[in-house]
Formats: sequence, structure tokens, C-alpha cells
Amino acid sequence: MNPLSSPLVTDLYQLTMLQAYFEAGMTETAVFELFVRKLPPGRNFLVAAGLEQAVEFLEGLRFGDEELEWIAASGLFKRDLAERLERLRFSGDVHAMPEGTVFFPNEPILRVTAPMPEAQLVESRLVNLLHFEVLVASKAARSVLVAPGKRLVDFGLRRAHGAEAGLLAARAAYLAGFDGSSAAIAGPRFGIPVFGTMAHSFVQSHASEAAAFVHFARAFPRTALLLIDTYDTAAAARKVAALAPELARDGIAVQGVRLDSGDLAALAREVRGVLDAAGLAKATIFASGNLDEYRVRDLVAAGAPIDGFGVGTSLVTSSDAPYLDAVYKLQEYAGRPRRKRSIGKATWPGRKQVYRHYGADGRFTRDVVAAESDRQAGEPLVAQVMAGGKRLRPLPALAAARTHAKAQLDRLPLRLCALEDAADPYPVEIAASLHALAAEVDAATEGAAGP
Amino acid sequence: MNPLSSPLVTDLYQLTMLQAYFEAGMTETAVFELFVRKLPPGRNFLVAAGLEQAVEFLEGLRFGDEELEWIAASGLFKRDLAERLERLRFSGDVHAMPEGTVFFPNEPILRVTAPMPEAQLVESRLVNLLHFEVLVASKAARSVLVAPGKRLVDFGLRRAHGAEAGLLAARAAYLAGFDGSSAAIAGPRFGIPVFGTMAHSFVQSHASEAAAFVHFARAFPRTALLLIDTYDTAAAARKVAALAPELARDGIAVQGVRLDSGDLAALAREVRGVLDAAGLAKATIFASGNLDEYRVRDLVAAGAPIDGFGVGTSLVTSSDAPYLDAVYKLQEYAGRPRRKRSIGKATWPGRKQVYRHYGADGRFTRDVVAAESDRQAGEPLVAQVMAGGKRLRPLPALAAARTHAKAQLDRLPLRLCALEDAADPYPVEIAASLHALAAEVDAATEGAAGP
Repeated sequence: MNPLSSPLVTDLYQLTMLQAYFEAGMTETAVFELFVRKLPPGRNFLVAAGLEQAVEFLEGLRFGDEELEWIAASGLFKRDLAERLERLRFSGDVHAMPEGTVFFPNEPILRVTAPMPEAQLVESRLVNLLHFEVLVASKAARSVLVAPGKRLVDFGLRRAHGAEAGLLAARAAYLAGFDGSSAAIAGPRFGIPVFGTMAHSFVQSHASEAAAFVHFARAFPRTALLLIDTYDTAAAARKVAALAPELARDGIAVQGVRLDSGDLAALAREVRGVLDAAGLAKATIFASGNLDEYRVRDLVAAGAPIDGFGVGTSLVTSSDAPYLDAVYKLQEYAGRPRRKRSIGKATWPGRKQVYRHYGADGRFTRDVVAAESDRQAGEPLVAQVMAGGKRLRPLPALAAARTHAKAQLDRLPLRLCALEDAADPYPVEIAASLHALAAEVDAATEGAAGP
Repeated sequence: MNPLSSPLVTDLYQLTMLQAYFEAGMTETAVFELFVRKLPPGRNFLVAAGLEQAVEFLEGLRFGDEELEWIAASGLFKRDLAERLERLRFSGDVHAMPEGTVFFPNEPILRVTAPMPEAQLVESRLVNLLHFEVLVASKAARSVLVAPGKRLVDFGLRRAHGAEAGLLAARAAYLAGFDGSSAAIAGPRFGIPVFGTMAHSFVQSHASEAAAFVHFARAFPRTALLLIDTYDTAAAARKVAALAPELARDGIAVQGVRLDSGDLAALAREVRGVLDAAGLAKATIFASGNLDEYRVRDLVAAGAPIDGFGVGTSLVTSSDAPYLDAVYKLQEYAGRPRRKRSIGKATWPGRKQVYRHYGADGRFTRDVVAAESDRQAGEPLVAQVMAGGKRLRPLPALAAARTHAKAQLDRLPLRLCALEDAADPYPVEIAASLHALAAEVDAATEGAAGP
């Protein structure tokens, strides 16, 4: 049972509800939308990501023998549930924002229209996939915005929350504009450029730091990036400078050095001076070590001579905001709009479209969320991607989605590009059509009036 | 290429270093230890977890055709690396703390002793697995400590960072004392009790809330837990009370209700009153909705009549501390102890053991980290689990590890059981043997003296 593809990567209540739906013949069309209720502190926008994985999951949805045996033997369900699940496939439609699209609270980035049991079952994994890739793409975009022209590499695999998180974080960061990842599997799996140098252990395992540098440079005559902070950064830079002529005689050029600790701005300046004085002007300086977008911004602002940054743990865990208020909510069932009115968690009913408006400078000015039937001015952001359980057409390749993300970040209102919360958040208007629909739904629903 | 088992779930630099090591014949025995450098704010202790997954990974380590083809075709390596990797298996020894053991900073929870290329290659995935399970087990233990006698269920799958995170979080939480998980796959995969009720969408999809309750209760005549906050919690509780006699005539007992929003303490009291007045004293009240250990503690302290808690996002993302400073460091190579002296990141060299001391009340009083050869008084916490690439014996089953964790939490010093940082942190002493070894290593290593 592979957790990456098993339909049991779902909450048990999806299965209990499915049993009840099947028994009662409640298999009419349900419409669910996935959106983020509000931005966490320190985020002015989000970046859509993970649609490719979501569509793959829906296309591949099926219960295998192992899953069916567990369901039958668990004692939790009636006998015929396993039989019904054996035949279950995803046969619905999906509408979504393209990956790389900048979006805001209350804007659906995915809509599922399918028979209720199918639409309900897929909730947990759809949220699981899209929530995480959006989380990391949105975090990564912040480093991208503050470090134009710098190489940015995802270094987070080891502290990502599991292997899938490491892999999908590499994808989401690349989508948002990172140059690549240290995670080897991101190469074969997604065609993402992979980067790697040496660890402190490599230096420590040699009789001397200089021996480690020579060894590594000879092993990688064009691409060696030497890690110089194991013992003393400035002293190590001088060793690199001293070794360079000997290596050059053998046709070996040190590509650069990596700093991983200490005062990176001061050390980078010192190291740059040492390298330049030795005629190694082309050798690059790469920095890593507990970096996040704030430290990257400050190093760039300080004019530190650093050519690239490895951003790891803070990126792949989105450490300052490790989750989003992402939800997947029923908006319509059997042709009737629905809404939830729980305290603090009320939703807008019905199928929706998001319309974006632009200013004279080409940047976004405001979005309007409207009922789908309420055609508005502005650019519609949600488009159909699956019909009857199949893709309408191939989704954009990762490279194209990355280009789209770049174009989106180029059109972001300037006040949203800062790392701090904008005093004036981006306006997302709820169209009159949705207000009217909500009132209509409330009038038709028994129970006290909601908030 | 399955990311859950692929050896390419590693940082690229492991592969570049391997090429250099193989070329130079640097395949002597390396010793690496995995430990956490310091506790994040809001943590007084950590709980060892993930060893079963780590050992499975090491036992199954092999490069498949897809991985070897990518390595050969990537242009990043020399030709013979793929040939060497094809033959590579993990042949080393592993020492570790048993899962469920409480541990503290600078204490190795895992030691790998293996030929350098093997020991180096596995770093990324070992840290990835152990870091995450320790993170969640340590977070879960905090809820366990503040809610004795309450049912605790992991509800976090959808906002876990990917499917593996959802699955391993369910495991780590159960290990630390949770009663189970909402993640269905945790049942078949780990034998963890799974729990589930209904979603708001179930209520919304019915013509009335009462119809939804009756439908669900008839579908699950013994286990129905009804979600009562979709529209108005108190009104819904009165509906449950009104429906109970009719259901009882058909032999159906509502097991309980779930609250998911609003002022949970006040609502629980009101709902308890309604249920009790209707003769439903046995119906339980389960609470969920943005809970963490602080809210659980406060609800318990307020005497809210809540029988169990669903803790989700905050648990599986360890939201207040979404990562640990977990590292895997070279401590010895070719028989010589090694250490890193990078600024702020210096390590203690050599193979280590951790000795725990207990007070008259049976609780821990202090730990001593010593060189392995320096036999000390106290209980040694690290034991060998693999020899020559194979398990010495089966690891304790998850249930046994859970029992061990409970016994450990029972012996935790009382000041560490609070949710706030203890004013007086747990003492971890570095034995004189390690100080002496560090001085010896520094004297033998060229470069300026480290910190």
C-alpha cells in the first residue's frame, strides 16, 4: 500500500460518509471548492501550485486489493461498501487556477464537480497536496522577490516533513522562481536542476582542509564549489587562493566557495577580497546556513558579494507560517447552492469565478469573486481542466508554469512585494451575486440565521 | 521511482562526495551521530521516534535501474559512479535510543558506523525521517501530558506536508500517547486505531440537519458521532435530544456529538446539559477546531465537559516549532575522532553513550553524555540495533514503543511537564572524556583553534 497513491490517504470520515451516501442513493452532483480563508501573518499573497499532482491523483484514484481487504476486515463498515469502492473512479469535472497564478483569500483555486461520494472522498488528499505546494511556492516567491539576479537553491530536503514533502517542496520552489534544488530526486522526477557541493564531513574526513579541496577540485574539475567554513572561513579562502595556481596548471578551475556559518556579509567581503587578489574574480560565493527571505533580503541590501543562496529548512517547512487556512467546502448539492454558517467559518455558496482587474502599469488592482453565472468584467482566473474524470488537455509543463509565476510576480502590486504585511491588503470583493445567493440559501435553510 | 524508497531522496552533494570517496579509495569506517543541537522555544524535552522507518530504509537501500540511468545520463558524474552505486548496500552497524525514549540536546539518538560512502549517502533521508517523527512525537506528548484521561485523536492529515507526513505524523502521535488518527491509512499500515465521524458537508447535503443526523445514526447504529456546529450548536444539540427516543425505539444509540467551532467550553457545558436532560448521559462530547495543546490544557483546566479532542494542523506541522535543529555529524573516520568547529556549530567528537540518572521518586534527574569507552554510572540509553546491515533482532512493535513512551513521560521531571519553557532546563552534562577528546582532536587538526 503506497501512501503516495493509496485512496486510504483520506480521513476515515470520508469513508463513513460514503457508506451513508451510497445507502441512501445520495449520489447526485456535488460541487466543492478549495480556497484559503485568510492569509497567515507575513503573507501578502499566495501562489497556486500542486494542480498537476492533484489531477494525477484524481485520474489514478482506485481502491486496490489491499485497501479493499482492510475496509472489509476493519469492522467499521457494512459489507457492501468495499464492493462499491472497488468500482469507484473519479468521473467528475475540475476547474482550477493555473499553477503559478497569484491568488488571495476566498478565491477558489480548485473546484470539483462530481457525484457526491467521489467529490467527498478526495477532499483530504486534494487539500493535502494543494495546501503544501501552495504553502512552499508562496514562501519561495518571497525570496525570489528580494533577491533578483541571485541564484536561489532549495536546500531543505533533510528537514522537510517526509520524502514527499522534500520532493514537492523542490517542485513548488522551482515553480515560484528558485533555480533548483539540492534534492537529487527532483532531477529525474521533475526535470528540476539539481545542485550540490560538499559537506563538512568531507573536509573533516581528510588529513587536511587543503587536501580535501584538492581532492574535490580534481574530482569535479569544472564544477567544484568548496565549502570553506569547517574550521576558519578566511583561512580556508586563503588556502583556496594558494591552491588555485597548481590546479590551474592541470586545467582545473575552482567554480566557487560556499559559506555556511558566521557573519555571512562580513565573511563574503573578506573572502571576495582574498579570491580577487588571487585572480579568482570568476569564482563565485554561495551562502547557506539558517537562511530565510529576511536574511537573504538583508544580505542583498547590505551589498554582500554573494552570488547565490541556499535556503533550506525555513523554505520547506514555511517555518514562519507552516500551514494555511486551506479548506474544501461544499458549495452546491443536487443543483442547490449550500453554505456552512459555523461561527467564524461561514462560507459563500455556489460555483464561483474570480475576475482580476489591472491598472495602467499592468499590475493587479483588485479581484472580484462572483457567482459563475454572473459574468463580470476583468480577467477570469479559473478555467476547466478536467471533464468526466479526464484532463481536457495536458496541463502546462513545469517550465511553463514557472514562466507564468514569474509573469505574475512581475505584475504584483508593489506594496505586496515587501516581506512585511502590507498596511493596505489586496482588495478581494465579493460580488453582489454572491451576497444575494447567500441570503437565498439562508432563507431556504432551517436553523437560526448564521453570522 | 517511488520517493518513499528511492535512494535519490538524498542531497546531490552526497553523490558528488561519493564519487570523490570512491575515486580516492576513501571507504574506511566512518561514524556519524544524529542529534538535536538545541531545543526550540516551547519544548522542554524531545521524544525519540522514527527508528523503525530509519532501519527499514537502511535495509532496503539499493539503486534501481531508473536511478542508475538518471545518474549515468545526468552529466554530473563520471561513468563509473553508477556501476559502484549499483552494487552499494548498507553494510554498517546502527546504535540508537529506543523509540519513545525522552531525550535532550546533544544526545545522539542514532549512530551509524559504516564505510564512508554508505554512511554519507544515507544522511539526508535518515535526518528527514527521524527529524519529522521526533518533531511530531514531541509535540504530541505535550497534549498527552495536559489531558490525562481524555481521548486524543490526530486530525491533521489534510494539512500535513504531504502524504508521508500525514502517515508518519499519525504514527508519531500514537507512539507518544494519542489514541488514534483520522487518517484511514494509519489503520492498515501501522495498526493504529482510526476514528471518524461526519463533515459539515454531510449536514449541508441533506434537506435538514435532523435528516442528516437520523441518516447517519441509522447508518452507524453504535458508533455515530454527530457533528452539531454546522448552523447553530445548541439548537442542533436539542435536535439530537429530540431524535433520541425515536432512534432508541429502533435500537440505535447516538454515541456522541462533535463541536468544531465557537466557544468550546461554554458550548460543551450547554450541550452537556441538553444531553443529560434528555437522558443521554452516556453520549460523549468530542471537540475539534484549531486545537493545540494550549487550548486543550485550558479546556481541561476550565472543567469543560469534553471527553476527547481532535488535534490536527498544529500537531502534524508542529506549528509553533515546525523544525528541530537536527543534524547528522561525522564523529570519527578511519579510527580517528573528528569534529566540526564552524562558528556556532561546533560538535563533540567520537562515539558517545548517554547515561541517565534517576531520583528517589523515580524521575530523571540528569543525563551525562560520555565517550563510549568511558563507562559511567547511570542507565545507558543507546544500544545496538543493526549489525552488518541487518537488524540484530526485531525492533519493539509500535504498541511496545508506545508503552515505553508512556513510562518515560511518567518519569519526566515535573517542571518539564508544563507547556512553558522550564526556568531550569534539564541538565545534560558533557563528560570530561569528551572535553579531553575534543582538545586532542583540535590539537591534531590544522587551522585556527575553534570556538
